[in-house]
Amino acid sequence: MDIKGFQFSAIEAAIKKPGRKDLALIFSETPATTVAVFTLNAVKAAPVLISMERIKGGKSQALLVNSGNANACTGTQGMNAARITSQMVAEGLGIPDETVQVSSTGVIGVQMPLERIKASIPALIEGLSSGTLDDIAQAIMTTDTFPKMEARSGVADGTSYCVAGVAKGAGMIMPNMATMLSFIITDAAVEPVFLDKAFRRAVDTSFNAITVDGDMSTNDTCLIMANAMAGNPLITEGTPEAIAFESLLSEVLLSLARQIVRDGEGATKFVQIRVNGAKNNADAKRAAMAIANSSLVKTAFFGQDANWGRIFAAVGYSGAEVDPSKLSLHFDDVCMAKNGVFSGGDAEQLGSAVLKNKEFSVVVDCGLGSGTATIYTSDLSHDYVSINADYRT
Amino acid sequence: MDIKGFQFSAIEAAIKKPGRKDLALIFSETPATTVAVFTLNAVKAAPVLISMERIKGGKSQALLVNSGNANACTGTQGMNAARITSQMVAEGLGIPDETVQVSSTGVIGVQMPLERIKASIPALIEGLSSGTLDDIAQAIMTTDTFPKMEARSGVADGTSYCVAGVAKGAGMIMPNMATMLSFIITDAAVEPVFLDKAFRRAVDTSFNAITVDGDMSTNDTCLIMANAMAGNPLITEGTPEAIAFESLLSEVLLSLARQIVRDGEGATKFVQIRVNGAKNNADAKRAAMAIANSSLVKTAFFGQDANWGRIFAAVGYSGAEVDPSKLSLHFDDVCMAKNGVFSGGDAEQLGSAVLKNKEFSVVVDCGLGSGTATIYTSDLSHDYVSINADYRT
Repeated sequence: MDIKGFQFSAIEAAIKKPGRKDLALIFSETPATTVAVFTLNAVKAAPVLISMERIKGGKSQALLVNSGNANACTGTQGMNAARITSQMVAEGLGIPDETVQVSSTGVIGVQMPLERIKASIPALIEGLSSGTLDDIAQAIMTTDTFPKMEARSGVADGTSYCVAGVAKGAGMIMPNMATMLSFIITDAAVEPVFLDKAFRRAVDTSFNAITVDGDMSTNDTCLIMANAMAGNPLITEGTPEAIAFESLLSEVLLSLARQIVRDGEGATKFVQIRVNGAKNNADAKRAAMAIANSSLVKTAFFGQDANWGRIFAAVGYSGAEVDPSKLSLHFDDVCMAKNGVFSGGDAEQLGSAVLKNKEFSVVVDCGLGSGTATIYTSDLSHDYVSINADYRT
Repeated sequence: MDIKGFQFSAIEAAIKKPGRKDLALIFSETPATTVAVFTLNAVKAAPVLISMERIKGGKSQALLVNSGNANACTGTQGMNAARITSQMVAEGLGIPDETVQVSSTGVIGVQMPLERIKASIPALIEGLSSGTLDDIAQAIMTTDTFPKMEARSGVADGTSYCVAGVAKGAGMIMPNMATMLSFIITDAAVEPVFLDKAFRRAVDTSFNAITVDGDMSTNDTCLIMANAMAGNPLITEGTPEAIAFESLLSEVLLSLARQIVRDGEGATKFVQIRVNGAKNNADAKRAAMAIANSSLVKTAFFGQDANWGRIFAAVGYSGAEVDPSKLSLHFDDVCMAKNGVFSGGDAEQLGSAVLKNKEFSVVVDCGLGSGTATIYTSDLSHDYVSINADYRT
């Protein structure tokens, strides 16, 4: 991957158990236009509170991230830990404090091992000369079973640029752990207001369109840094270059989001939930989210059971406008129900066969309007319970 | 139990697998003042739609209920099945059609075995001479592991009366099954408008205060019939008799609600979630429900893990107003966190010890106002997944 002007480093600071990197740094050689979206949870981790403040400046040059400790529900001591460590990074790099973004993922309610992190920062900075983005993807993992990375390259006015990103698990993947994090970098020059809009739209149809267990974390952060080192003319809204850039950005985010669902806790299925014909898009998303978050629907997926009634029940309580006599349902191309009732014949047999696949789609049509939404989710398995209940054993 | 003027019958109509009663009838010798609350799900079962219409008359004399088939998502054919069978009951009893309430619980989306039910109705009516309320409690069970029944007696103006009820499982207890049903009967004479108010208040703090898996069914029905056969002077609002009656009614409903949670799918814990100090009662209920429905909190209960951070995270995304620095948390009398941070010392050890009990309470104080709410819930265990995924094996 040829992405200009970014450096990477990751080391083992003994925040997690021995043998795994847990402290990482992304550095941009020039100040990068930076926008981000953060968790809507009222209980926000210290690094989220600090990054929310710093992001207002519009530029950043470094991102310090650790796994193994969420630095959430840690009060003033947690705020100080985030400030002290990011200050050390700023001094080491010779950049202003407020251009260092901070992020954490891991156990909630435990104070950060401040001395161990401080002791590791010089080596972390030194490592920038030799690190790769893959090191970052590795270092932010908790119970993720594989690192999540994606990259695309594009051309703007004859100049090549790259959009790349890393992510770690959604749905509070780790027992005691609480975070979906994703960091995107690009060397393209992008006009800040357009970057913000395009990024939010891309997040909405990727990270905001997945759910593993419906639990919203205290640390969710998705951030993009655009450092303009590719040398392209500034990409501005309403141009073909803007459309191409946003399309690349969406592809990267959607790929990362899908990787997170695939690596969902205990997941054995990857399910695309599509709702069509809702009164509007908001209703469609409500219905799709209700299906995707229903424990009964998710256990039926795990059991490979064509239990379509549970899906209509979830649509019914979703809050979306529903006319039961107009609902229809497909598993892939098998029509399970139409006009609100079972479609008969060998639908149950054919539907169960679809659910035996690792990956399939559930399509509900509300028959009311043109609202649509797509949500990606996993099933609810024995392993989900084991991972979350027995993590100490 | 001495409840005057009610008769009961239950038989095996081959709706469920052989060997279990699945069709039941409650008959009041005189028209009874009847009020009910029904599921808010937009997808409503046929018997719910019919009973919602008939309840407007304010009086009923019989209740026909079956288990093994929810008669939901069954369209016109399902509506006809419910009408035809209740009409047979009305004719057999010599009462008007519209005074027969109907209710169903079981698999969604499968048509009712109409001929088998019709063939069973004469014997069902004949059985009224010898049946008991316990027969009803048995016949409405699906995967419930025990029948749920409660009774209390009171005195109004020197006349004894009784309030009794039965219920079956919440949280779509059975795979493919979808229903919480509860039927309450009393021989007290109660003024209808007061009965309606008192009943709704009692439902709000009992059945509306429990959750097993957060899935709202298509068939939920809670109904009370008051037939005045005790001979007491009419109980009217604002009297000591009304207060006493409402208190008895609340006790019966709360007992049944707690029985449902205890018998929740795969439940190994009975947990009382109490939220105090919220801005108002609605916020308190939002926060308590978010805790009670969080898969991560529920698996931590199952794992007997004092993972208090997950509880604050759930409060944070509940939609209730929250100041993280004012949150406190107790497991029974062990203070786990105050001012938003871990309370330190041996709290984790003591808290884990509390969670080893079969029954415990979780108390969150928001430190903002005087809003309170109590919710009862169970844990999320391996057996919940097994019951819902593997029901055919």
